[in-house]
Amino acid sequence: MTEQHRQPHGDATSEAGDLAVLEQQDHAITEPTELDAARLDRILDAVEAGDAEAVRAAIDPLHAADIADLLEQISPHQRRALLSLYALEIDGDILSHLDDSIREEVIESLPRDVLAEAMRELDTDDVVDILEDLEQPEQAFILQALESDDRAAVESALAWPEYSAGRLMQSETVTGPQDWTVGQAIDHLRSVEWLPDQFYHVILVDERHRPTGHVTLGRVLASRRDVALRDITEKEFRTIEATEEEAEVAFLFNKYHLISAPVVDAAGRLVGVITIDDAMTVLDEEHEEDMLRLSGVVMEASVSDNALTTARLRLPWLVVNLFTASLSAVVITQFEATIEALVVLAALMPIVASTGGIAGTQSLAVAVRALATRSLTSANATRVVWRELGAGMLNGAGLALILGLGGWLIFGDLWLGVVLGMAMICNQIVAALGGVLVPLGLNRLGLDPALASGTFVTTLTDVMGFFAFLGFATVFLL
Amino acid sequence: MTEQHRQPHGDATSEAGDLAVLEQQDHAITEPTELDAARLDRILDAVEAGDAEAVRAAIDPLHAADIADLLEQISPHQRRALLSLYALEIDGDILSHLDDSIREEVIESLPRDVLAEAMRELDTDDVVDILEDLEQPEQAFILQALESDDRAAVESALAWPEYSAGRLMQSETVTGPQDWTVGQAIDHLRSVEWLPDQFYHVILVDERHRPTGHVTLGRVLASRRDVALRDITEKEFRTIEATEEEAEVAFLFNKYHLISAPVVDAAGRLVGVITIDDAMTVLDEEHEEDMLRLSGVVMEASVSDNALTTARLRLPWLVVNLFTASLSAVVITQFEATIEALVVLAALMPIVASTGGIAGTQSLAVAVRALATRSLTSANATRVVWRELGAGMLNGAGLALILGLGGWLIFGDLWLGVVLGMAMICNQIVAALGGVLVPLGLNRLGLDPALASGTFVTTLTDVMGFFAFLGFATVFLL
Repeated sequence: MTEQHRQPHGDATSEAGDLAVLEQQDHAITEPTELDAARLDRILDAVEAGDAEAVRAAIDPLHAADIADLLEQISPHQRRALLSLYALEIDGDILSHLDDSIREEVIESLPRDVLAEAMRELDTDDVVDILEDLEQPEQAFILQALESDDRAAVESALAWPEYSAGRLMQSETVTGPQDWTVGQAIDHLRSVEWLPDQFYHVILVDERHRPTGHVTLGRVLASRRDVALRDITEKEFRTIEATEEEAEVAFLFNKYHLISAPVVDAAGRLVGVITIDDAMTVLDEEHEEDMLRLSGVVMEASVSDNALTTARLRLPWLVVNLFTASLSAVVITQFEATIEALVVLAALMPIVASTGGIAGTQSLAVAVRALATRSLTSANATRVVWRELGAGMLNGAGLALILGLGGWLIFGDLWLGVVLGMAMICNQIVAALGGVLVPLGLNRLGLDPALASGTFVTTLTDVMGFFAFLGFATVFLL
Repeated sequence: MTEQHRQPHGDATSEAGDLAVLEQQDHAITEPTELDAARLDRILDAVEAGDAEAVRAAIDPLHAADIADLLEQISPHQRRALLSLYALEIDGDILSHLDDSIREEVIESLPRDVLAEAMRELDTDDVVDILEDLEQPEQAFILQALESDDRAAVESALAWPEYSAGRLMQSETVTGPQDWTVGQAIDHLRSVEWLPDQFYHVILVDERHRPTGHVTLGRVLASRRDVALRDITEKEFRTIEATEEEAEVAFLFNKYHLISAPVVDAAGRLVGVITIDDAMTVLDEEHEEDMLRLSGVVMEASVSDNALTTARLRLPWLVVNLFTASLSAVVITQFEATIEALVVLAALMPIVASTGGIAGTQSLAVAVRALATRSLTSANATRVVWRELGAGMLNGAGLALILGLGGWLIFGDLWLGVVLGMAMICNQIVAALGGVLVPLGLNRLGLDPALASGTFVTTLTDVMGFFAFLGFATVFLL
C-alpha cells in the first residue's frame, strides 16, 4: 500500500544536469494539473461525444480530490453519462474524497469488481468513513470484498459509536516495546512487509499493549542506533479514548497542535491512531455544521442537493419562524388603536425591530464561536454577559441618537424622535443579551449552542422592538 | 530546540515490569493536567493572596495552550496580578498560543530579558506570527534579541506580504541533493547539530535549491540504506509560492490532505516549509472570519475584548442597517392609506418579512460555505441558482398554505388568506435567489462573499415582504 514512484526524467537529470530537462522536470512537478474551466469543458464535450478514451485522457492527470469535485459539480445527467464511460477507472481515493450526498449514487453505479478493488486499496479508516454512510446490502458486499485482516479491522471500528474517535482512527499502528533502541526500531521498520501510508511516530507500548509514549520519526532518524527510544519520547503525549466524540478530537488536535495521537480502549490498550489530516476534516465539518445551524439549516446541506432536498432541509426552521413571527403580530395587534391614530408608526416600527435583529445575530455569532473554541467558559461567562450589556448600551445610545435626530428632523416631532431613540436603546440591550444568554443556556443544558440559530434571537428582537416602540408611542405620542 | 525528555519511572518499568509502577506511569501519561474549574479557582486564590509559589505550582503542570486560555479567560485586573507573580515563567509557547488581543498586553508586561529568552526558544514561524502584530519598538527589541541566523530568517519572512505563505512558513528545512541515498540522508540527519521541532519529509533539491520531490520520514526509515531517495519520493508533490494567500494554503492542505509542503520563491527556489498544524490554525481562523462576517461583525472579535471594542466592531453594520431598514419604512409609507383602512395589515406584515429573512439567511449560509470550499463554481452556479429558485417556490408554497389557511380561519376573510399566501410565495423566492445571487455577485467582483452578511439579504426580504403583502392587500382587499 505504500506507493512507490519514480520521478520522470529523474535519472537523466542526476547524470547530466541538463538544464532543459531540469526545467521540464521542475515544471512537471510544481504545477500539478488543475481542474480548470477549459478542462471541465473538454471533459464534458468528450462525455457528450461518448468518447471514453478522451474522457480518460482528460481526467487521469487529475488528483483524486479534483475528480471528486468534478463529479460533484456536474449535473446528475452528466454524472451518469460520465460514469458509464469512466467507471472502470474510479479508485478508492476518489470515493474517499466524494461528498456523502453523491457517493452512494456513484457507488451504486460501479461494477461490483471495480468497487471491491477500490475498497481494497484504501486504509481501513477510509473504508470505515465510506461504509458507515451506506445501506446494508452495499456494506455487506464491501466487507466481504476486503481481505480478512482489513475486514476484521473495519468491523471492530464499526463497533465504536458513530462520530467517535474509534470510527475516525486507522487501526494500523507502528509500535515497539518500551526498551527498544533506535537501531531496533529501524531494523523492524525495514523488515515489515507493510506500513501505513501515514505515520509520524513510533508508539512505545507496554506488555499489555498500552501506549506509554511516542517518538517522532524525525527524532528516530536523527539519533544514533544505540539510543533508547524511551529517552527521546515527546514531552507532550496525549492518548484519546476510542469513545471520545470526533468534534472533541478535532478540538484537541487544533488546540495542542497534535500531529497524531494514539487511540485507546477502556482498558488503556492501543487500538489505533488518529492523524491530523482526519482531524482537520472533522474540524472543517464541525465549522460547516455550526455555520449552517446558526443560519437555520438543520443539517448537512450540499450544493449537489436537488431543490426538493434543499427545501426539506430548510422548511423546519421556516415553519418554526412562522409561528414565532406570529408572536410579533399578536404584540402589534395590542397597539392597533395607536397605529390607527398615527399610521406612520407602522412604517417606522420595522427599523427598530430589524436593527435589533442584526445586533442579536452579531452577539449570537460571537458567543457560538467562543463556546465552540472553549474560550467562553464558566470562568468568564459573567464578565462576557456584562460586556455584551455594555456594548448593547453603547451601540443603543449611538443608534438612538442617529435615529432619534433623524425622526425629529424628518417628521418635525421631537417626541417621535425620543420614542424612536428609547425603543432603539431597549432593543439593542435585549439583542446583545439575548445573543449571548440563549446559546449559554443551550450549552448549559448540554445542547448545541448553534441550535439557537437566528430564529430565536430575531423573534426576541422583533417582539421587543415592536413592543418597546409601540408601547412608548402609546405613552408619549397619544 | 529539539527537546529531550526522560519518562518518569521509565527505567524501573523496563527492568521490573512492576505492575504498580506501570499503572502509575500509565496514569501520569494518559491524563495530562487540565485547566478545570477547581484549578482555576486555586490559581485565582493564590493570585489574590499574592502567593507566587502557589501560583507557579498550580500553573506549571499545564500545557502552554491551557496557560494561554487561562490568561484569556480571567479579567484584565486578575491578569495583571497574575503576571506580576508569574511573568518570569512565561515562555515562548505560551505567547504563541495567546490570542492577539491579549498578547500585546502580556508582552508589554514582561521583563525585557524574559521576553528575549521566550522569543529565542521559538521556531522562526512562531516568532513571525507574534512579531507581525506588535508595534515598532517591540518588534525592534525582539529582532535584536534573536540570534543572528534566526533574525535573518524572521526578517526575510517579514518581507513577504501579510497573510501570505511566506509569513506562515518556517524557514528551517530539511533537504538533500537529488542523488542521495537513504543512508546518506540518515547520516546527515544524525550529524547536524540542530533540526526543526517538526518535519515530516526530506525535501530533494536540485543544484539551484529548487525542490524536485520529497520523501516521507516513514519511507526513509523503512528503506534500506542503499535505496536512492529519488526512487521513494511521494507521487503527490505540491510546492506553494511564498506569495500565495494563507487562506489558499489552508484550502490546499485540507483538500489534498497535505502534511507539509515546500514553499518556493518566484524563481522556484526553496525558501521554507509549511506544516499542516499551521494550515489548520489558518483554516480555523478563516472559518471564524466567515461566520462573523456573515453575521455582520466586521473583523476579528474575541471574548476578551472589552465592551467598547465590542461595540465598535459591531456598529458599522448596525448603522448600515439603520439606513437600509429605512427603505422598508419608505415602502410602507406608500401604503399608509391601505393600513389606515385595514390596520390588521400592520400586525401581519412582519410575518411575511421575517420568514423571508430566515429563508434568505439559510440560502446565504449555504452559498457562502459552498464558495469557501470551492464547491460552488462557474460549472454549477446556474444549476444552483435554479435549485434555489425551486426550493424557494416549494417552501413558499408550503408556508403560503399554512399561513393562508391560518389567516383565513382566524380573520374569517378568504382574500386576506390569499394575500398572505401570495406575498409569502413571492418573498420566499426573492429570499432564496437573493441568498445565492448576492454572494455569487460579490465573488465575481473579487470580494469576500461573506461580506454579503445578513444585512443585505434581510433588507431585501424586508422590503420585498412589505411591498408584496401591502401591494396585494391594496389590490385585493380594498
